[in-house]
Amino acid sequence: MSEINILGEAYKKAKYKVPGHGPRNVQVLKEALINIDGEMESEMYGKGKVIDDFQDKIALYLGKEAAVFFPSGTMAQQIALRIWCDQKGIKKVAYHPLSHLEIHEEDGLKELHHIEPILLADKDTVIQLEDVLKLEEEIACLLLELPQREIGGQLPDYKTLEDISAFCKEKGIKLHLDGARLFEILPYYQKSAAEVCALFDSVYVSFYKGIGGIAGAILAGDKAFTEESKVWKRRHGGDLISLYPYIISADYYFDQRLSNMNQYYEEAKELAQFFNQCYRVSTKPLEPVSNMFHVHFEAPKDEMEVILATIYEETGIGLTGYVREVTKTTSYYEISIGDLYAQLPKEDLKKVFQLLDEKMKSIKTL
Amino acid sequence: MSEINILGEAYKKAKYKVPGHGPRNVQVLKEALINIDGEMESEMYGKGKVIDDFQDKIALYLGKEAAVFFPSGTMAQQIALRIWCDQKGIKKVAYHPLSHLEIHEEDGLKELHHIEPILLADKDTVIQLEDVLKLEEEIACLLLELPQREIGGQLPDYKTLEDISAFCKEKGIKLHLDGARLFEILPYYQKSAAEVCALFDSVYVSFYKGIGGIAGAILAGDKAFTEESKVWKRRHGGDLISLYPYIISADYYFDQRLSNMNQYYEEAKELAQFFNQCYRVSTKPLEPVSNMFHVHFEAPKDEMEVILATIYEETGIGLTGYVREVTKTTSYYEISIGDLYAQLPKEDLKKVFQLLDEKMKSIKTL
Repeated sequence: MSEINILGEAYKKAKYKVPGHGPRNVQVLKEALINIDGEMESEMYGKGKVIDDFQDKIALYLGKEAAVFFPSGTMAQQIALRIWCDQKGIKKVAYHPLSHLEIHEEDGLKELHHIEPILLADKDTVIQLEDVLKLEEEIACLLLELPQREIGGQLPDYKTLEDISAFCKEKGIKLHLDGARLFEILPYYQKSAAEVCALFDSVYVSFYKGIGGIAGAILAGDKAFTEESKVWKRRHGGDLISLYPYIISADYYFDQRLSNMNQYYEEAKELAQFFNQCYRVSTKPLEPVSNMFHVHFEAPKDEMEVILATIYEETGIGLTGYVREVTKTTSYYEISIGDLYAQLPKEDLKKVFQLLDEKMKSIKTL
Repeated sequence: MSEINILGEAYKKAKYKVPGHGPRNVQVLKEALINIDGEMESEMYGKGKVIDDFQDKIALYLGKEAAVFFPSGTMAQQIALRIWCDQKGIKKVAYHPLSHLEIHEEDGLKELHHIEPILLADKDTVIQLEDVLKLEEEIACLLLELPQREIGGQLPDYKTLEDISAFCKEKGIKLHLDGARLFEILPYYQKSAAEVCALFDSVYVSFYKGIGGIAGAILAGDKAFTEESKVWKRRHGGDLISLYPYIISADYYFDQRLSNMNQYYEEAKELAQFFNQCYRVSTKPLEPVSNMFHVHFEAPKDEMEVILATIYEETGIGLTGYVREVTKTTSYYEISIGDLYAQLPKEDLKKVFQLLDEKMKSIKTL
């Protein structure tokens, strides 16, 4: 058995889990369907009450003219960038070097849409106004991911967002929001979704991160934009005869969890403090600005797997099922707070961090 | 209220419906989930037991090395053609002028993959060996749709399939099966799915036509082909974190309905006979070769809508919710037989055709 499995197995067996809303199992779908009348009709290829109602609801919430439900954010975002590129007649966009489009989509944007991305900012920092001002090439669209997931979920100042938005407007650059975790950052910014979205021409939001649905995304913007996005949705093979299993569950968990975002954010800050009190452990960002952050260890991946697995066995509390290597002597993992955190026995959780601190101190000098 | 609504409303109100398996409503999903343990885990981005098991099951059934579950056939088929084009370094394929790719996908194949289709055969006939032999340009792939849906679900002789397959193999042309309705034609050919699929390099099948699932498709072929298709599935935005709502329902209704295909086929032949006995009514094909066919009326669309709506009101049996114009004086609709046909009161059904015959005879000369 590999060491990855030692940690994975120990995590699976742990009575309590720190991150998330609970297992991604069929019960998630069953629960969302309990109060749905079996006679509710499916939409048909993007048309019908179940999809119309949800699209209207989210458009209103985001303060946009219209919204379209997509099976995935990958599809929605490529399409948004394609529309803005076609409109301007320039096949160039800009985004962060660790954007989902750059590292998780098998180069779909390039292979399917022949759009060239310009990577803005150093990969360890968020995009600042200066990065945008320095742009030498003309671009059709700038994509900002809020928060920047791959660096622990960092955010620029709200003023920076306003400045970038104003600059783009002036220069005729469309501004697109990768809002996969938009709901999760509103407590930090102390803004409504509509206030944030007003800075952007187009917005994508996801329903299976903080919301905890099964899959699916919304792309929102003005009506001309969303109508064109439907044509591309058909081209991509995303205009399914029935998307209602995703829509119904997105709607159900949106209603259930949207008001919890502040709680997740506060809990993330508390948990990050616990980590930062441990020797050779730090979080990125040091103080979370959403429900997520990264935990960095000054210890090799293999060693951390053994340490963590032992802690789970002693306390019954699981922190993570994996650890990733950063360098030969450092490692990290990502955490997102959901419903489970509030259910943790706090005394046992304190024990977790006592043990973690002790074990990190007992590591032989690297 | 427009006349389309007269027919649509009358159809909705009809106690019995002739085509299909029943309403496409949430109950279809609920039923498929009843015996599924809530603790069954979701697959994660194409990996996990629920998707692996179904892919293996369908690969075995189709006699192919491997199979990949896709959210839609639109996505699966564009990807199949792209892979074959890339492999040969030729961006040309051939298919029927009324192929789904040509008329229902907003030109995704051209807009996303820059593949040029050569349209084979007259639009009113199926592709024959001679059409393939006459091809002057080099192509990477030939796509055959069995049955050819847009002309009533027609089929070539099985010998023709064998000859086209042998010719393609000899010429290094990949042969792809648009098997959206593959299950439905097996009783006519008296072949197993694996026997038919052995003639093709790649195969797409759908789970929401004769099978009556919610959405979803399988793309099958050799392992190298299906592995490459997964990369493209990610690029298209089809590699969802969870496709299990579609997979579970596809599996459930596959098990339930696969053995009914012969019954649907026999019922389609019976029903076509009823239509063909009516004045100014004929079916295409005259004798169905699957569970589907088209019903053609020598009467204008508007007139047929009134005639049909009246018949539904008198008999309680609905034939169709729409009629499409062919010319100013002719019209048609498409029918697919499913579970509902066997539940029709036969005496009332006879009345439907008595009335239809009478009313068609009473139409003033056109």
